[in-house]
Formats: sequence, C-alpha cells, structure tokens
Amino acid sequence: MQEDPITRPIAELSAKLRANKLRSADLAENALDRIARFDGKLESFVCVADDARAQAAAADREIAEGRWRGHLHGVPVAIKDNYLTANMPTGAGTDARGVEFARQDSAVVARLRAAGAVIIGKTRMHEFAWGNVTPPAKNPWDTSRVPGGSSGGSGAAVAARIVPMAMGSDTGGSIRIPAALCGTVGLKPTFGRVSRAGIVPHSWSLDHAGPLSYTVADSAHTLNAISGHDPNDPGSARIDVPDFSAALGQPVAGLRIGICRNHMFDSNQPDVGEAIESAIRFYRDAGAHLVEFELPILAFGLGAIFAIELSSSTAYHSRNLASGAAKGFTDDVRTLVEMGRMVSGADYLKAEQLRRTLIDDLAKVFADVDVIIGPTCPLTAWPIGEWSVRIGDQDESVLAASWRLTYPWNLAGLPAISLPCGFDSAGLPIGLQLAARPFDEANLIRAADAYERSHDWKDISPKLST
Amino acid sequence: MQEDPITRPIAELSAKLRANKLRSADLAENALDRIARFDGKLESFVCVADDARAQAAAADREIAEGRWRGHLHGVPVAIKDNYLTANMPTGAGTDARGVEFARQDSAVVARLRAAGAVIIGKTRMHEFAWGNVTPPAKNPWDTSRVPGGSSGGSGAAVAARIVPMAMGSDTGGSIRIPAALCGTVGLKPTFGRVSRAGIVPHSWSLDHAGPLSYTVADSAHTLNAISGHDPNDPGSARIDVPDFSAALGQPVAGLRIGICRNHMFDSNQPDVGEAIESAIRFYRDAGAHLVEFELPILAFGLGAIFAIELSSSTAYHSRNLASGAAKGFTDDVRTLVEMGRMVSGADYLKAEQLRRTLIDDLAKVFADVDVIIGPTCPLTAWPIGEWSVRIGDQDESVLAASWRLTYPWNLAGLPAISLPCGFDSAGLPIGLQLAARPFDEANLIRAADAYERSHDWKDISPKLST
Repeated sequence: MQEDPITRPIAELSAKLRANKLRSADLAENALDRIARFDGKLESFVCVADDARAQAAAADREIAEGRWRGHLHGVPVAIKDNYLTANMPTGAGTDARGVEFARQDSAVVARLRAAGAVIIGKTRMHEFAWGNVTPPAKNPWDTSRVPGGSSGGSGAAVAARIVPMAMGSDTGGSIRIPAALCGTVGLKPTFGRVSRAGIVPHSWSLDHAGPLSYTVADSAHTLNAISGHDPNDPGSARIDVPDFSAALGQPVAGLRIGICRNHMFDSNQPDVGEAIESAIRFYRDAGAHLVEFELPILAFGLGAIFAIELSSSTAYHSRNLASGAAKGFTDDVRTLVEMGRMVSGADYLKAEQLRRTLIDDLAKVFADVDVIIGPTCPLTAWPIGEWSVRIGDQDESVLAASWRLTYPWNLAGLPAISLPCGFDSAGLPIGLQLAARPFDEANLIRAADAYERSHDWKDISPKLST
Repeated sequence: MQEDPITRPIAELSAKLRANKLRSADLAENALDRIARFDGKLESFVCVADDARAQAAAADREIAEGRWRGHLHGVPVAIKDNYLTANMPTGAGTDARGVEFARQDSAVVARLRAAGAVIIGKTRMHEFAWGNVTPPAKNPWDTSRVPGGSSGGSGAAVAARIVPMAMGSDTGGSIRIPAALCGTVGLKPTFGRVSRAGIVPHSWSLDHAGPLSYTVADSAHTLNAISGHDPNDPGSARIDVPDFSAALGQPVAGLRIGICRNHMFDSNQPDVGEAIESAIRFYRDAGAHLVEFELPILAFGLGAIFAIELSSSTAYHSRNLASGAAKGFTDDVRTLVEMGRMVSGADYLKAEQLRRTLIDDLAKVFADVDVIIGPTCPLTAWPIGEWSVRIGDQDESVLAASWRLTYPWNLAGLPAISLPCGFDSAGLPIGLQLAARPFDEANLIRAADAYERSHDWKDISPKLST
C-alpha cells in the first residue's frame, strides 16, 4: 500500500511541492481523507475549512508559476481553536452561551497564510486552555487514553499524521505535554518571539504560541514563518529573527548540557526516567559536556504559577463571570475561574517576585550551560477519566504532576522543546524536554535535531483504526 | 541681622565652599542651630546625626586640600526616614514593635556621601509612606496646617530653610505634595532613574526617590549625584545620565507645553487654578507653544493606582500581618494594609492593564508636546485634623483630592516636578507641576528653571517662631 503523502515531514513535502512532483491539492485531499477515516474516533478536529481545497489550488497555481514562498507553501496545517481565523469560527474549547469571538485572522494565522500554508481546520482544545485532558479527544497511541492538553487536538492530529504541523499554545505546558503524550515534537518559543495577537488569552504573561510537528526541522521551518515583532502583542519582543533552519544538522560536540537533578528528576515514572538517562548518554557520547546542578527555588514554583494563572484567567473572564456566561463553562474550568477571585493582589505580587528570582537563578545556571535537559512530563498518557496516577511508590494528582516539569519554562519565559525519546512498557510515547536561554531557540533546535537524527522514534507512528 | 547661610541655595553655598569663603562646619552648625530653634515646633526631624560635625569637618579638610567633589560637597542635607542610613537608625515612620531595619546606607545615601554631602538628620514621614499628613509635623507657613506627605518632614525642613535639600520618596505624590504645600521644589525623576535600593518599599512599581530643595537648580545638582543604574534595584534602568545642570538657564521659546484640560483642571481651588493659568501665560509669553488636549482615561486612574498600591503594600507587609506587628501601626495605615487583602489578583491585573493604556495614551500626547503643565495639588495646605475640604461648591475628601493630580505620573513612571508658583489668599504656597517624557528630566528642569528665574517665589520664606 502506498504511504499517504501527508504523513511525511514538511521538509520532504516542500521539496516535492516546489519541484512540482506533488500537488497541494492532493495533500489537502489526503488530509481531509484522513480526517474522515480516523477523526471520528480521535475527535481531534472541531472544524474543517470550507475553503481548504481552494487554498490548496491557489498554492498549486502560485508554485506552478514559480512563485514558491518557502517550506510551508501548499502544506496543510491545523490551528488550535483559540487562534482567531477568518475562514472558520473560533470556539476556544467552550460551548458556553454568550461567549463569541471575532471572525478574523490572528497574527500567527496571517503569517502562516503569508507563508502559503493551507489552513485546513481547527483542533480541539481543553476549554479556554485551562486543563491537560482535552475531552473528548483521544490519544492515537491508545484511544482509551488522553492526548494531554490543552493543545490535545493538535497533539492527536499530528500524531495521527493528519497534518504535519498544528499550532498550539502553551501557558504551563500546553504545547509540550500533548507533544510528549502523543509522541510529536512540540516547541514553545521564548516569550515575545511569536505574537499572541488574536489568540484567546489564558494568562498574558505566561501564554506562548508554537507548533507541534513530526520533526524538529519542521518546527524550525514553522518558527521561521511565525516569528517576529508585532505591535499588537504587548509582550512581543523587538529582537532579530535568525534563520532557525541554520541550526539543523549541526554537531553537538562542545555543547554544555545542564541537568537539574532536583525537581526535574524527583519523581518520574521509571520508564520515563530511563529514557531520559539514555538521551543524556547520547549527548555525552556525541561530545557534549554534561553539567549537573540543582535549582532549589523550583520547590516553590507551582504556587507561583498557579497564583499568576488564576489571577490572569479570572481577570480575562471577569466579563463572563459578570454576565453569567461562566455558568456555562464545564465544572472544572468554571471552578478555576471562580477560584481565581480568592487570589489576592498581594499573593499575585509575591508570585511575581518568585518568578523574578527564578529568572535570575536560571540566568546564573545558563552562564555554565547552553541547554537544560530533562523529561517533558513525569508520566505517559493516562487513562481517560483517571485523576490520580501511581508514580514510583506514591499516588499523585494527574493535574499536579503532569505540568510539573513544563511550567518552570513558562514562568521564566525561556524556549523549550519536547521531542519523542522512546516508549514506555505499555508502548506509550515518552517526551524529552530541552530548554535554552532567552531567544536562543537555535541551540534548542540544534540539540533536539541532533538527537532526532540519531534515533528513529519519529518514524514510528501509531496504528490507527477507523 | 546677618542672614543664616544655610538658607541659601546649594549653588550659592557650593561656590563659597569651593572658594574657601564658607566652611561646611559652619553650615552644619547653622543647620543644627535652626533645628534647635525651629524644629521643636515643626517636628520635621526624627533624628539628628551624631557625626554631623565630623562629616562637615572631613568635607572642609578635603575642600581645603583642593579635592572639591562637586556641588553637594560639604552641604548639609536631610534624608527621609525610609532611606536606610549607616549613621542613624531608620524608622520608616512607624512606632510598631517588631519592625526593624538594617543599619546600612541605602544606594542614594551612599551616592550622596560619595558626592561629599553632610547627612545631618532623618526627616519625619507618614507611617510607611502610606498617607499625606505626616503627623505630628507642621507646615512652616502655618503650623496649624499639615505639611502634606508622605515626605512631610522633608517638605517642612526645606521650607523652614533648615537644609537646602532633603530626600523624599514618591509613590503617588509623596515628594510633590509636601513640596507644593510647603512651597519648595520637589522632583520625582523617571521610574528607574534613581535607585530605590535600601529604601523601605511601599509599592515597588510606583516608588520613586527624589529631592526636595529651595531651587530647581539644586534639584538638578542633586539628581546629577544620585542618578544611574543600580543592579540592586530591579526597577533601575540602564540608561545614560546626562548633566542635568546643562538644562539650567535655557530659553523655553519653541518648547511645546501641553495642558490636559480634563482631570487636571476639573476641580481645583480658585486661587490654585488662577496661579496655574498665570504660569501658562508666562510660558506663552516666553515663546512656548501651548497645546491643549484631553486624556479621558484619567477618570479611571484612581482605582488603578489604589489597587496596585494596596496590593503591593500588603505584599510587603505580609510578614508584619502574620507576626502581628501590623497591630502596632496607626489605625489609618493598619486599615490600608489589612484592606489590601481584599484586592484580588484579577483586580490587580486589570489595574496594570489600565496603567499600560495610560502609558500608551501619554506616549501619543508626548508626540506633540514636550512638557505637560498643571497644578501639583488641587488645594493648599489644609488644617491638621481636617479630612474634608470645600473645593468650589463641593466637599471633597482630602485624601482623595490631595493626590489626584500627582498619581498619574507615578502610574506612568514619568518625571514630574513641583515648584512654587505663588500663594493663595491665606498666604499658603501653591505648587505648579510639570511632567515630561520618560528620562527627559532635562526638559522638565529647563521649563521649571525658566519659570523660577522669572519669579521671586523662591526668595519668600515663612516667618518661623521658636
């Protein structure tokens, strides 16, 4: 049986598209066909674009005329449902009445269109990005398990090879957790690198936009397309955007890899811990320098990010609380939005002070290391409906454990990537997380790509049932 | 009768000190003598330095040896009691038990010492800088009236010509209000210009350090001595420090003077309003361009600064609330610190959003103007014990009215100066306030100095009784 073309990475597709050996129209048809075949079960999409075929046809015409725009030109991609889109409604994961969003393109979607991408559909998300479960979406590796969240639809759609890239957003781990649980690459760029204008906010100072993709290279190509200053995002940085693809294929000899031995390795599932130690050995054997350290402040991070997230989310939803629309939220999200009123401004400021100290402490660490390595998530995909998991010899709340290793990079605003690094004994994907200095996505991509090239995890896909 | 030398501005004193026509020891003796003669009544000082005479003698030796350090060398100055000092205890205006402060120099005091100033005493302040009354200090123009606050002791001490400069701190107007009510110059520099390291915090994002002085020129000389980056203040800016005295004596022809006709002129005492209109005419006649505008957002500023101030103050005092030390605060301050717990993190964030919009709106205004003019305070010094004043045909809360025109420049972090511009019908001083772009203290000083040189307000001092 001929392999579906859409299951191949963007770098491959774009070479064929540019050479007129593949048509965007066929790719779009292939993606739509896979949605029809597999997504009834996975429920990773909430909306398919009426104009998907027209977008693809337009891309084909341009490419045929020699006006190739770059790697994303003619490639079908999906967008998390909290990004505003002109050609599709935006739901932000909520069914609540009285909550509506503008029908216009968010900054990232506009940039993707300018790069020639075919915006094929919107992916399911945890309501208002406030959770790690994303019901009713399922994990393509085991449909009795969660895809993670809040960008769970993007994780499932990319893992099911329906599209080679789907945008996610990440406030405490919402790109990297579904990437880890679904076995895809997920990149959270530095705070300020990618505009959030036109993305339904969760927590302004923690929200990041970034891609989930089959490969590290494709996350670099996507980052090239979506990065840059945007005056419409108050958090957007005025900083040069390098060509991130220049970091691909580079050796890691001499790179200094930091290992935070507290917090990041305190309580992980044994399979997860072993996979990460194996990845660490890969870097050592490739000539990287390993630097172990501890960061005691991480013991206090959860309270800080939770106070900031609760306050910001409740500030954003104050209109929905006042109008009564919040009554229509799902119970878990409504509870969080209402709980946010209990956090005082003084608590918020103490959380911000801790954040400042964490940033300063990390700056000291990054004087001696280039990239910090660890797991993305202490556990692999958990069964739908489970709220407690056994890690080692203790039971832990899934909600508390799942983002423990990702939220520090939101608090600090540093770039972080999750990439596949093997499977646990149940055959579920494990995520390796790397983080780097502010705006040093290049070293992140360099280190991640080197690992990916030396392993074949990216070539193993889940068996899907229709 | 010979005039007391300490009653003359720093610029004059320093010329004589440098030329060995005046001794720092005599100036210090003169200041101590005036404290003894007048401060029993005024209660503007809380502490006099044991080593004042020794500091002055050291300055005299250095100057005699030809090692003159600059305008402040050998000049007695006073320090608000929330600046840590190595040679004196710090009280921050509180008598509460269980609240103690380190015996070391704050960054500004260290810079003043490096400039050769004689740190002669600490001035009274409203408890924790949380109020505009500063009991039991009195206004030298009428000792039945308040000196304003929270730097009321600095205002009274400078107005009484005990020292030509006293440092203040300003979170919502605490330098400019006592300057206006006591008839001195008071300068709040741009947020980030002067280090707050070692100043007992009130509200980190609103606190500013700056001088009260007899003249605009002396505020420029002081600013030269205390400005510059300090890694120990997270709010400190990395930005060049010009020689602010270069702005003295410059013409104002061509300067664009902005007049915010809403808020700043909504409800001022008639004498105050007339004095400001007269100052506006001065600038027009001197060749400045007048630009009238409105800033509707100012209608919502009070709630925003109050939410930020309450949250920050309560965050700072959370240890004192937990230990019970806050029970020893005066009732008004204890109430504010306890009230701060009612402000939610969501409220705080909405206040910060308003602040951001105010900053953006002001940036647009400053595209067309160089300096914004208005009153410092809608009223002149009110009687001690009064909490309500009649302004025009309505009764207003003194606490709400007194900082209405000053707090916008704290929210926006812009430089602002108050300088004397006449007297009301009761003979009480009126303050003229000017504000400028971020880090453009030069235009502020230029405009203020031009007005001061053309008027004789600075040469009129209160009649003091012993």
